[in-house]
Amino acid sequence: MEDRRIFRDLITVDEARNKFYDHINFSETAELVSLSNALNRVTIETVFSYIDVPPFDRASMDGFAVHSNDIQEAEEDNPITLTIVGAIKAGYTYNELIKPGTCVEISTGAPVPLGINSVVMVEYTRKNDNKVEILKPTTPSENIMSAGSDIQQGERLLPPKTLLTSRELSVLAAIGMHEIKVIKKPKVALFSSGDEIIQLGNPLEEGKLYDINSTSISNTIIENGGDPIFMGIIKDNHEELTNKLAECIGKFDLVIVSGGTSAGMGDILYKVVDELGKPGLLVHGVKVKPGKPTILAVCDGTPVIGLPGYPASALSITSLFVVPLIRKLAGYKPTTERTKVKAIVKRKIRSVEGRYEFKPMNLVKTRDSWFTFPVPGGSGAITSIVQADGFIEIPEDVKFIEPNTEVTISLFSEYIKPFDIQIIGSHCMALAHLQDVFMEEFPQYSVRSLGIGSTGGVAAIRREEAHIAGIHILDENKGYNKWLEDEMNIKIIPGYYRMQGLIVKKGNPKQIFGLNDLLRSDIKFINRNKGSGTRILLDILFEKMNIDKEKIIGYSQSVKSHTSAAEFVKKGIVDVAVGVESVVTSELDFIPLREEEYDLAIPTYFLDLPAIISFIETLQSDKFKARINKLKGYRLK
Amino acid sequence: MEDRRIFRDLITVDEARNKFYDHINFSETAELVSLSNALNRVTIETVFSYIDVPPFDRASMDGFAVHSNDIQEAEEDNPITLTIVGAIKAGYTYNELIKPGTCVEISTGAPVPLGINSVVMVEYTRKNDNKVEILKPTTPSENIMSAGSDIQQGERLLPPKTLLTSRELSVLAAIGMHEIKVIKKPKVALFSSGDEIIQLGNPLEEGKLYDINSTSISNTIIENGGDPIFMGIIKDNHEELTNKLAECIGKFDLVIVSGGTSAGMGDILYKVVDELGKPGLLVHGVKVKPGKPTILAVCDGTPVIGLPGYPASALSITSLFVVPLIRKLAGYKPTTERTKVKAIVKRKIRSVEGRYEFKPMNLVKTRDSWFTFPVPGGSGAITSIVQADGFIEIPEDVKFIEPNTEVTISLFSEYIKPFDIQIIGSHCMALAHLQDVFMEEFPQYSVRSLGIGSTGGVAAIRREEAHIAGIHILDENKGYNKWLEDEMNIKIIPGYYRMQGLIVKKGNPKQIFGLNDLLRSDIKFINRNKGSGTRILLDILFEKMNIDKEKIIGYSQSVKSHTSAAEFVKKGIVDVAVGVESVVTSELDFIPLREEEYDLAIPTYFLDLPAIISFIETLQSDKFKARINKLKGYRLK
Repeated sequence: MEDRRIFRDLITVDEARNKFYDHINFSETAELVSLSNALNRVTIETVFSYIDVPPFDRASMDGFAVHSNDIQEAEEDNPITLTIVGAIKAGYTYNELIKPGTCVEISTGAPVPLGINSVVMVEYTRKNDNKVEILKPTTPSENIMSAGSDIQQGERLLPPKTLLTSRELSVLAAIGMHEIKVIKKPKVALFSSGDEIIQLGNPLEEGKLYDINSTSISNTIIENGGDPIFMGIIKDNHEELTNKLAECIGKFDLVIVSGGTSAGMGDILYKVVDELGKPGLLVHGVKVKPGKPTILAVCDGTPVIGLPGYPASALSITSLFVVPLIRKLAGYKPTTERTKVKAIVKRKIRSVEGRYEFKPMNLVKTRDSWFTFPVPGGSGAITSIVQADGFIEIPEDVKFIEPNTEVTISLFSEYIKPFDIQIIGSHCMALAHLQDVFMEEFPQYSVRSLGIGSTGGVAAIRREEAHIAGIHILDENKGYNKWLEDEMNIKIIPGYYRMQGLIVKKGNPKQIFGLNDLLRSDIKFINRNKGSGTRILLDILFEKMNIDKEKIIGYSQSVKSHTSAAEFVKKGIVDVAVGVESVVTSELDFIPLREEEYDLAIPTYFLDLPAIISFIETLQSDKFKARINKLKGYRLK
Repeated sequence: MEDRRIFRDLITVDEARNKFYDHINFSETAELVSLSNALNRVTIETVFSYIDVPPFDRASMDGFAVHSNDIQEAEEDNPITLTIVGAIKAGYTYNELIKPGTCVEISTGAPVPLGINSVVMVEYTRKNDNKVEILKPTTPSENIMSAGSDIQQGERLLPPKTLLTSRELSVLAAIGMHEIKVIKKPKVALFSSGDEIIQLGNPLEEGKLYDINSTSISNTIIENGGDPIFMGIIKDNHEELTNKLAECIGKFDLVIVSGGTSAGMGDILYKVVDELGKPGLLVHGVKVKPGKPTILAVCDGTPVIGLPGYPASALSITSLFVVPLIRKLAGYKPTTERTKVKAIVKRKIRSVEGRYEFKPMNLVKTRDSWFTFPVPGGSGAITSIVQADGFIEIPEDVKFIEPNTEVTISLFSEYIKPFDIQIIGSHCMALAHLQDVFMEEFPQYSVRSLGIGSTGGVAAIRREEAHIAGIHILDENKGYNKWLEDEMNIKIIPGYYRMQGLIVKKGNPKQIFGLNDLLRSDIKFINRNKGSGTRILLDILFEKMNIDKEKIIGYSQSVKSHTSAAEFVKKGIVDVAVGVESVVTSELDFIPLREEEYDLAIPTYFLDLPAIISFIETLQSDKFKARINKLKGYRLK
């Protein structure tokens, strides 16, 4: 029972982080790297210049190095003739004193010889053998860049803890530095654990899952300045875990075990880390959702983090504990307002009281504001990660966030840029092609499309969570889509017609010819998700034909997309599904039901955004027309 | 003369780019990389899922897998007892059908066996040997995550040309992908040329300069998705140039020669590229400032760019021609509004008519707006690069930009973030320490300091080009600094006292004891820059002592900082300089003149910015006090 107690004695994120940091040694280790390997590294100490730049007085123009005293009276029609005693090219020196009445020919960048004080540009001279006529006087220092005028010896060039971009490296190159002392990248040992986890690239055995976390965590570590080393997958076994972790103590700056906190494993990992070194286990369970069963330990100086196995939980704990620690060890700035965006939530968001909530959010930039909403999909969903731009943190004492509240979104990484166009609505093959053509023609923009059905799309643009809804909503009396213009402030941009129909196996083995056949007891059907235009169409057709849909086997089961519908038939899970003709491959047959109209609904106040204008232009382009003509069952409006 | 004609036939940036691109093959080459090496690469084709995620129906809670029909009546005080026929842990399968009245113990993540339809959480059960009492009914599907509910087989996961961040890679891991087809990084051969250029790390010979451009260009190429290979420094020689470049044609996606456009070299490089392959030389000279003598060529399919050698000119041409080309070849998005910032210029900016001007700019974020101004320093100055955040492009037909105009700044790279605090003013050792302590205590902020003298600092905060001016301005009647509060809307934050004095060589060999000695004909002096508080102080002292400053040898020569002043004495270039005591090292001696007051001048409307509050807090902290007490000649106010 002692074991359980620790786990149930949850502490807050801040308490956990403080307790953890108290036992970590944050003094940096220096490492000497060559300038060509120093990009994105962080300096450890102040850099002073040990030379002048330029190191000598140099000509900044091609011409003749003269003493201005000699040519004070020079004019276009009163040239002064000097004797040329030599020539200096860039990279060479001229070590004799230049006497009055003489001069040297000089190239840009060449060192200025003794005895002269200016350079007259070649344009204001006429050369004849070893004589030159000067047509214009000079002032002292004219066309000479003096030694140290750019950087002076002893000058402070970079403060400590400077992130080296191409800009800073150029300055180090200017003083000839070829190596620079930087903070050593924190080395992270990364284990995945669990009997159900298999490595990427291996065949997927029954009951097993691919290891997502080692990829997502290691790339997040790289993005934040760390050096991850994947150590493999460990089985849920006390001895194996002890041996593998023991090898890492003292050799790495951080050890991470993902998936080591679940029911079976959780009972092992926290015991193992507590025995590995002093002080051992520090935190077992944090008041955060998702990610509660987190383990934080320090073993003889090496910090160890145990992350939950669920990707979304792992992401939460990676963002809250791993990222700040790696950045601190790497000398990177904490993720601050630089990666934070203020945005407005348009709907009420509920949170669990008493737990700090980490909620993946989707960001949309509309005209002047940013809007944000929780990504669709539960905490276990990996798709919730790819659709999320960042997260909000909801404190323990907050039950819900009211609509129209401003919140702060932390972007998942500095590399994530919210999309210029967000489309939410009905899944459509042609829409994917439209996006592709758009990206080819207007690569400066980005577009993301989330398929949640036509009705969801309309709700999304109503809440300003998207710029465009791709829809096909049939009203029995008013027809397709256009009628929505009367109900809200949107414009329907004409899209295309597409043929909906029944999808069956090649050769139609069950002899299905119409919707009435779905009532047969030997027919297994799969529906589309609620709110999808396809389901609305079906329901209208069922009603017209007086078909009692509750009697259809599989009516209450659904898939999210046309492609998935086709897959279910192909794999033989069902006998028939409904979808557009374009997903019908050679192993399938198609029974047309009805041609429908797919259009883009766009709020009128977005119509003049440059990205939207370009998107509509793409929809109406010949290039897209050619593309859609190749898709079975589609034709442009 | 034919040669000269091409060079003088300048064309615009757009014309040049179009002419160049017309001869370049932009079709991408695919490359298969492992997922662990795919960060920041760009996909080449659409990625569809070839599996369901999860691949099977799995328990989302620890508990018992049951059929809800069996436990419909279950309640806390009416438990229903089921027989446990087995247990399934995550990663294992149970292949027998579960009969009514029986159940299996199941762990989170384990596959749900046939015959059951829900999982009851362990919290609502009481286990006794092979029996379990169920205390609560379940609904069908409760605590089961169904196959494909996250990702369905056939689903479109990523569109083509997707930049892979940790987020996208996680999704690829979810479907078990261990290799991904990405666009091959464009391989760039990079030469530096010029007899005056020497490689970093080598001793600096007379008349030579370190090679800045290969570092700045190659890191810029990396930042934009390319793979640069430095090929060394070539001498200004037709044969060597021809041989070295010929080896690269057909083997690289781009060849860059920096410095190959100067007077001597310019006559060689454009001839060489014209002979190297078809079509050869395309552009020789672009209407841009700086960077006019640019060479663009395509030789048998390989593009070649000749860049001017001056760092600022090279940077201009790199930004205008190299970066867009590399990004296009790498499949990266063009630098668009993502790296662009709108800002207001507060002073008139002149531009050369008829030339497209590329002007490095400094950015300051004040309360709600961004302000921008040209960086100090001429076109040859490397410091102008490190102080610049980005650039503006001024079209050919614009003569000047009026004050208070909004302009668009293109950031030099996505990695450059404007500073939270910009300090402009007098160079001061203690200020550098203050910055260091500030960065240690408040790592979330960034601060940059430009030393241009006290007067320049006051002008800068007046124009909102800085948040803070570090100043020591003595008015004979009103004393130090504080009087400025009456003249403008600023607050003077008390800083510290510092001792100014004469800096001489150890042992004072020239026996200098006061300002009068500067008049001696055997004494060489170096002054501080105009507008610096030190120079103002000196001028006041000279006036008080009736010293004719024009008679002082070196009065009109100046250095920018105290450190440089000390260096000039140390190196023996001058006998005496003026500066603060803290720069006096063991090879130097110091003759105190006067203690002065160094304060921070801050516009009142910046005083409540969080970064500014923290900076003032740092100035008044014990940690900074301890630091300043260690500096000779300083004491806190």
